[in-house]
Amino acid sequence: MTDPALAEALQRAVDASEDVRGRTSPNPPVGAVVLDAAGRIAGVGATQPPGGPHAEVMALRAAGERARGGTAVVTLEPCNHTGRTGPCTRALIDAGIATVYYAVPDPNPSAAGGAATLRAAGIVVHEGLGADVVAAGPLRAWLHRTRTGRPHVTWKYAATLDGRIAATDGTSRWISGPESRAIVHADRARLDAIVVGTGTVLADDPWLTARLPDGSLAPHQPLRVVVGTRDLPTRARVLDDAAPTLVLRTHDVDEVLDALTAHPDVLLEGGPRLAGAFLAARRIDRIQAYIAPVLLGDGLSAVRDAGVHTIAEAIRFRRERVETVGADVLITLVPDREQRSG
Amino acid sequence: MTDPALAEALQRAVDASEDVRGRTSPNPPVGAVVLDAAGRIAGVGATQPPGGPHAEVMALRAAGERARGGTAVVTLEPCNHTGRTGPCTRALIDAGIATVYYAVPDPNPSAAGGAATLRAAGIVVHEGLGADVVAAGPLRAWLHRTRTGRPHVTWKYAATLDGRIAATDGTSRWISGPESRAIVHADRARLDAIVVGTGTVLADDPWLTARLPDGSLAPHQPLRVVVGTRDLPTRARVLDDAAPTLVLRTHDVDEVLDALTAHPDVLLEGGPRLAGAFLAARRIDRIQAYIAPVLLGDGLSAVRDAGVHTIAEAIRFRRERVETVGADVLITLVPDREQRSG
Repeated sequence: MTDPALAEALQRAVDASEDVRGRTSPNPPVGAVVLDAAGRIAGVGATQPPGGPHAEVMALRAAGERARGGTAVVTLEPCNHTGRTGPCTRALIDAGIATVYYAVPDPNPSAAGGAATLRAAGIVVHEGLGADVVAAGPLRAWLHRTRTGRPHVTWKYAATLDGRIAATDGTSRWISGPESRAIVHADRARLDAIVVGTGTVLADDPWLTARLPDGSLAPHQPLRVVVGTRDLPTRARVLDDAAPTLVLRTHDVDEVLDALTAHPDVLLEGGPRLAGAFLAARRIDRIQAYIAPVLLGDGLSAVRDAGVHTIAEAIRFRRERVETVGADVLITLVPDREQRSG
Repeated sequence: MTDPALAEALQRAVDASEDVRGRTSPNPPVGAVVLDAAGRIAGVGATQPPGGPHAEVMALRAAGERARGGTAVVTLEPCNHTGRTGPCTRALIDAGIATVYYAVPDPNPSAAGGAATLRAAGIVVHEGLGADVVAAGPLRAWLHRTRTGRPHVTWKYAATLDGRIAATDGTSRWISGPESRAIVHADRARLDAIVVGTGTVLADDPWLTARLPDGSLAPHQPLRVVVGTRDLPTRARVLDDAAPTLVLRTHDVDEVLDALTAHPDVLLEGGPRLAGAFLAARRIDRIQAYIAPVLLGDGLSAVRDAGVHTIAEAIRFRRERVETVGADVLITLVPDREQRSG
């Protein structure tokens, strides 16, 4: 097996898992590629919706007899347990796979042990291929939930360079550019839930749906979650039938997260007070800030009341990534480990 | 002459001009390199303080007889007029230079015509080598002042991701990292003037001096400028004898700039209201925002009262550059041409 062939197989497996992200809970979005004995791609698969086959089984089905003597490249350690589907280790053994590469070990005790089972059956097993890419990418939220018991929370916002999300008169369309807004829409279709405060619903009346470029609804819609104690108008768009909506009449961040444990990948969209509450509770696992090359000098700030009164209490993150999106700059931050709580 | 040799000569000329930036006014900071007839670097020079030789003369002196039949690479069109020094065109002709490359034509009518004079003397002249690098780099402020009659104003600030420059209790040390602060100090020594408001002096009592890494004063200090009508304590550090200080008892941005026409490269350091006034007047020519991976959720914003009340009035810039500096992100913006005034 050559390195370029393995790298290509890994990329195809990652891409396949990204395509099903948001549609596999409670299962992780996994991708798998089967190469034939000559190292050519014979099958690609990804986790199907709950009750359906896992990624390895999909890739093996696509490969058919070409799997015999071949190699499987999987983003997660093949599972070893019989849940709603049979164990993937069994499927790989029965198909005559000779070598397995997987990125990330399964942290779930009931599913782990797959590598040992495969080795006992005479398969050569390698762990760690593309582990960083997978753990920070398609499996990020699922791994976080498995490790902490809580959903992974990404706080996304678009602001001016001076940190404003609306002008003094409340207008905010548009601060970020069309390229940024397109990415945000594409991301929504791969999430488990989108959370906003009642203030955002009352101010902006958003749909919070994922839409395709032509404006139609994407096939998968995340759960819409509205947090807060203010009453919502019955005709609020977020209460329409385009997607399910959960209304949580609380301001307690951990109550919100407890209600969302079945939704590992959560996007927090606003507003400033809700973001402040999540920051104060140290429950933001990633910040995606779209910074537009615009100044307002006044207006609504992106965050309020994060419980910080002096610089020594500042909430410190570290930079994961900086990229340009059209005219904007997308800054991605993750908690600074030293300040990170549980 | 090979392209790599020319590119290296240009880089050396740019570096030489950067080294004298801040010490040449009213003359531009120019760099020059003389290559011998075989294309080897024979001399490097840069503009000396007012009354001293220009860059070409310095480079020719260093090259001596090796200049004969050689090439000069200069960041600005060689001057054609006799001011406090003789014309550079004369010096190049007398030294027997065969070819001249220069980056940017001289926009100053009294000094222009250098290229024509050189050609009339039989020298081969090429304009435009590295023009973008030079015009956006060492000659940026001087070209701006020559074109507009006003100094070039860079607004520099360090803020949290949410646009705060101090916590609610006024503490602000430190938001940006040590790498960012080191760059800011090194930049100061190459400026003509640093402008702050009286509010910043009263709140922070800064020295506004350029210091070397060992803490001692840099050989060149920019003019310190304090703007505003509030009284300063006589013991304010900015009034010490480490550098000259100009106190301008006004809030009018154009009055400030009129007082600084002899100082083409001006850095605006704060505070929020002064930045707002400059933004409202459309007199910010560049923004350098050091964004730290820190959240405060409250406190002092980087800018206030920029005269914007609704999103349609937002002050739009465009991205010139994004880079990482230690843990921070440095975003450099310039005015969006469509909104730019005069």
